[in-house]
Amino acid sequence: MTHFRHAAAPEGRYERGSRMLTTVDGPAGLEVVENLAKSFPDFARYVLEFSFGDIYARESLGLRERELATVAALCAMGNAQPQLRVHVHAALHVGCKPAEVVEVVMQMSVYAGFPAALNGLSVVREVFAEAGIQLPLA
Amino acid sequence: MTHFRHAAAPEGRYERGSRMLTTVDGPAGLEVVENLAKSFPDFARYVLEFSFGDIYARESLGLRERELATVAALCAMGNAQPQLRVHVHAALHVGCKPAEVVEVVMQMSVYAGFPAALNGLSVVREVFAEAGIQLPLA
Amino acid sequence: MTHFRHAAAPEGRYERGSRMLTTVDGPAGLEVVENLAKSFPDFARYVLEFSFGDIYARESLGLRERELATVAALCAMGNAQPQLRVHVHAALHVGCKPAEVVEVVMQMSVYAGFPAALNGLSVVREVFAEAGIQLPLA
Amino acid sequence: MTHFRHAAAPEGRYERGSRMLTTVDGPAGLEVVENLAKSFPDFARYVLEFSFGDIYARESLGLRERELATVAALCAMGNAQPQLRVHVHAALHVGCKPAEVVEVVMQMSVYAGFPAALNGLSVVREVFAEAGIQLPLA
Amino acid sequence: MTHFRHAAAPEGRYERGSRMLTTVDGPAGLEVVENLAKSFPDFARYVLEFSFGDIYARESLGLRERELATVAALCAMGNAQPQLRVHVHAALHVGCKPAEVVEVVMQMSVYAGFPAALNGLSVVREVFAEAGIQLPLA
Amino acid sequence: MTHFRHAAAPEGRYERGSRMLTTVDGPAGLEVVENLAKSFPDFARYVLEFSFGDIYARESLGLRERELATVAALCAMGNAQPQLRVHVHAALHVGCKPAEVVEVVMQMSVYAGFPAALNGLSVVREVFAEAGIQLPLA
Repeated sequence: MTHFRHAAAPEGRYERGSRMLTTVDGPAGLEVVENLAKSFPDFARYVLEFSFGDIYARESLGLRERELATVAALCAMGNAQPQLRVHVHAALHVGCKPAEVVEVVMQMSVYAGFPAALNGLSVVREVFAEAGIQLPLA
Repeated sequence: MTHFRHAAAPEGRYERGSRMLTTVDGPAGLEVVENLAKSFPDFARYVLEFSFGDIYARESLGLRERELATVAALCAMGNAQPQLRVHVHAALHVGCKPAEVVEVVMQMSVYAGFPAALNGLSVVREVFAEAGIQLPLA
Repeated sequence: MTHFRHAAAPEGRYERGSRMLTTVDGPAGLEVVENLAKSFPDFARYVLEFSFGDIYARESLGLRERELATVAALCAMGNAQPQLRVHVHAALHVGCKPAEVVEVVMQMSVYAGFPAALNGLSVVREVFAEAGIQLPLA
Repeated sequence: MTHFRHAAAPEGRYERGSRMLTTVDGPAGLEVVENLAKSFPDFARYVLEFSFGDIYARESLGLRERELATVAALCAMGNAQPQLRVHVHAALHVGCKPAEVVEVVMQMSVYAGFPAALNGLSVVREVFAEAGIQLPLA
Repeated sequence: MTHFRHAAAPEGRYERGSRMLTTVDGPAGLEVVENLAKSFPDFARYVLEFSFGDIYARESLGLRERELATVAALCAMGNAQPQLRVHVHAALHVGCKPAEVVEVVMQMSVYAGFPAALNGLSVVREVFAEAGIQLPLA
Repeated sequence: MTHFRHAAAPEGRYERGSRMLTTVDGPAGLEVVENLAKSFPDFARYVLEFSFGDIYARESLGLRERELATVAALCAMGNAQPQLRVHVHAALHVGCKPAEVVEVVMQMSVYAGFPAALNGLSVVREVFAEAGIQLPLA
């Protein structure tokens, strides 16, 4: 999945998506997609092209806001733990403070119920542990 | 539902909730809760005390971020149109740009599918029309 | 959909379902199913045979508990308003107190979030109005 | 939204999406997207490019199967009635027999419960009425 | 999290919540919340104060009915297995018969589909095994 | 769960359900139900009688279409992984091509979002590995 951009070529959706995913989640995100590509190459391409190349690359919303919104949605839906893990990590990576991430997840108790928030906090705890962020936050 | 705070009394959860709801959504939000209180007074009190007096009053997250997260979650869940309407309005009220609200809803196509985003955009269109915000955004 | 049971015949699933539905919801429930049967007769039969003839006819749980559980589930799921309406009516019909129905719906704020409970209370308000039950409950 | 393809140009994602949507749903589908484009032109473009230009244009699955799968999913999710309506129409348009559509919706009672199937059948009834398909099916 | 109530002080929401949780689920429930409090102390407090101190402490609905309603809702939602486990345990703890719990979960096949009920029965089987309740029930 | 059909007896719902389940999923499906029957015999009976004896036995829809519709619905709902696994297996068993199954799951990205599709593809990968189907598909 290495792609060289020739000087003259405009950046394509795929390249822009790879670049955005790296900006959003660091090498970890790209690894997930590369692993996916081993089994489902077309779908890995859509993830990069549409999710990151089309949507995340749009300029009217900051990446911090995008990630907090994604954490909120995945936590509220409650059936997408692996993706919630990725985006809690990504939220920290784009500069959200740990306390902001915790707040968004706690807020989901209001909109999606306490189980959604509790299961979201379990994911937060795991990602924070890997990132060396101590809980409870000071 | 008028409440006088005596000089010496610390602000209670109910009063703080009313104040936060007004900050977040203007008089429109309080009207919704007051209408609810006519039939279900205890539940109206919980909405103010817990949702707004406890959660929204916490300081670690800005109101703009809170509202964008709520719009994301309600749009993704897809079964809470009346509340989505309130919070699209509230997002504008706390200073989110119209384009930011539209971006968050469009982004939900990635996480909750195109129908969730499309139905969210229908709500956005209605609230924007009432607010005199012209679509498409320039 | 009239069915005569011969003296010697054991009650079938269909007849038992019709009888249970009438017990649970009065003539209103049967009307819904008869209306369904005009367009989708097989599915109307399954509703009676499986939902009411098999499940509701089981003896290990009281009808009051069955209806409160159904109101809870439909309110929490949030995408089945017409059925929630039927079962709020049915809950009253099998002897649940209005306050019990309201409590179950309010409790869903904990498990499915405030929008689910609020939208459930809207349905409760409509059914109670038709039933002449005044809100707020004394 | 008229687009002229020059003889030499390969068909782009947008053009392919428009063509696929027309194949799938006739002029009705394109009208929905054109209406969307008046308020949210970028999102209308994504609907055509990704949903229809990328996914529906893939050759490994027949359009009949695609539409039955979509009807199943939207009926099971239960929070996307406007889209379910479009795809019940589309299922008929690509050659699914009315009985096949009804079967798929009825089958959802097993996987998503009777309310999902019942609300799906209500949509079926409306679309069939507009299409002049008489119920019950002979 | 030990709290001493002074003779003269009225019971606060937190204390009432702790007491209700112990009534509902025995020491097991309090342990879950105390474990949560190590990482997210504010959220643990909200669980006790709102869920148990406000909602469960209300008198218009019996605890048996509350627990059956919660088991129904969590089973139907299908994305809250850890919480379903807690409340199957709690249902037994407040005096629901094993057969009543099984009936509520089986009934969810009607409203949320067979997968929801099957996954709920898996949780029931585990909790019953820990509680020494033999299946099939006699 | 062995059942002998006497020459003169018409096939009952239970027998028809066992036969359909075996047709749909081979011995694996029946094993799942027999294992269920050890703890919850009545519910195992309903699975056979209603899901397979009533619904799957209907003739207006082919088994391939039924299985693709079920895979779509379970993938979109996202909270029924064990059942999705069974039906990915069943889809192959009734003659769906591996590529058709992958297409249906990928298509769910449009209707239920990328997380639903990604988690569905994880299940597909596991079932395909057990079935000796190599990924990526040629």
